[in-house]
Amino acid sequence: METKRKFAVVLAGCGNRDGAEIHESVMTLYAIAKAGCTYDIFAPDINQYHVINHFTGEATSETRNVLVESARIARGKIRPLSEFDAQRFDILMFAGGFGVAKNLCTYAFDGADCAVNAEVERAVVEMNDLGKPIGALCISPVILAKVLSAVNITMGQDASAIANIEKMGAIHQATDSREIVIDHDNKIVTSPCYMLDANIVDIAEGAIKTVDALVGLSTH
Amino acid sequence: METKRKFAVVLAGCGNRDGAEIHESVMTLYAIAKAGCTYDIFAPDINQYHVINHFTGEATSETRNVLVESARIARGKIRPLSEFDAQRFDILMFAGGFGVAKNLCTYAFDGADCAVNAEVERAVVEMNDLGKPIGALCISPVILAKVLSAVNITMGQDASAIANIEKMGAIHQATDSREIVIDHDNKIVTSPCYMLDANIVDIAEGAIKTVDALVGLSTH
Repeated sequence: METKRKFAVVLAGCGNRDGAEIHESVMTLYAIAKAGCTYDIFAPDINQYHVINHFTGEATSETRNVLVESARIARGKIRPLSEFDAQRFDILMFAGGFGVAKNLCTYAFDGADCAVNAEVERAVVEMNDLGKPIGALCISPVILAKVLSAVNITMGQDASAIANIEKMGAIHQATDSREIVIDHDNKIVTSPCYMLDANIVDIAEGAIKTVDALVGLSTH
Repeated sequence: METKRKFAVVLAGCGNRDGAEIHESVMTLYAIAKAGCTYDIFAPDINQYHVINHFTGEATSETRNVLVESARIARGKIRPLSEFDAQRFDILMFAGGFGVAKNLCTYAFDGADCAVNAEVERAVVEMNDLGKPIGALCISPVILAKVLSAVNITMGQDASAIANIEKMGAIHQATDSREIVIDHDNKIVTSPCYMLDANIVDIAEGAIKTVDALVGLSTH
């Protein structure tokens, strides 16, 4: 029996304040490989909303590209999200980081009224239409709430996030570190990761449980 | 009995081609936390040798700072290496990445004749003088060979690296993925990681074995 699922992982840059959260991204890749599965990595070829100096916390005047910076986490093995083909993958997964809410959608600025990047939206809709599972860590479930609306997800315990999720028509389930929420009907798995005051082992456990649940939901 | 060791982790930027290798860095932090230990992260406050676009592989005209970029991996919790105090830590550890050979020393350009950053050298010498263990992944054992000379280390199986290591007065032991070399006399542990054609699970296993061996060598 073939159980080796092919994941597509979408990143939002490289750094928790303006891009993909690095620990969540690496633990996602680790969890996929550990489960005996494979991954291709994608990111949109667009400029980041902004660049934050992660030492001082201040915005800089630099311009950086989401695909180019995500390539640091991917060690160069990455493709533009425009080339994503839902037929070629079994599972789609989003790591978290503020870049998800700034680069992949406008949630950081517009909350429940956010717009989602067209390529990101297409990837989610096409996978969902094909009945294929989608995983999302940390803040990235906002994309699934906005695009798919009536889904059961978790973003931890943050009151404002929960209010926004419900405003978008999704159902929020509160979770603690290392917990996941599985929406069996929509084949969606989410875990709070750094939406909570978590440590790096919590992140690894959250990613591993999410990946394992996604593999369980996946049918060839 | 107190077994919770305090690690100091030194990073060289953020990205395998011009900075710290991200998977090795994250797996180092993961292995330390998983072993029930704690870490502080350090990097020198200097400009990177250069900036590589990790999507195209081309050098760019940008200028980036090693401390500021390392802060992306550290989620902002990082200090300048100038503030490192060997008295306050039990174990020193270096992740790998080409940035180690470009920013922390000049090995990428000068091979066995390389110079080591003064703050990096001081950290290594002070820990070694105090009889405290030092770990190094991937290409970073070159720093230990240059600073301490007569040590037993591994950098995998690369012929040119082995020749350089021996020219610096160190003894090289060939290893495969997930293997480590322990120099009991000098309390040094090394593992090849991405010096070999490894995958991310190999990196995690290499980091976990290295950290566990370091804890075993550490005495309070």
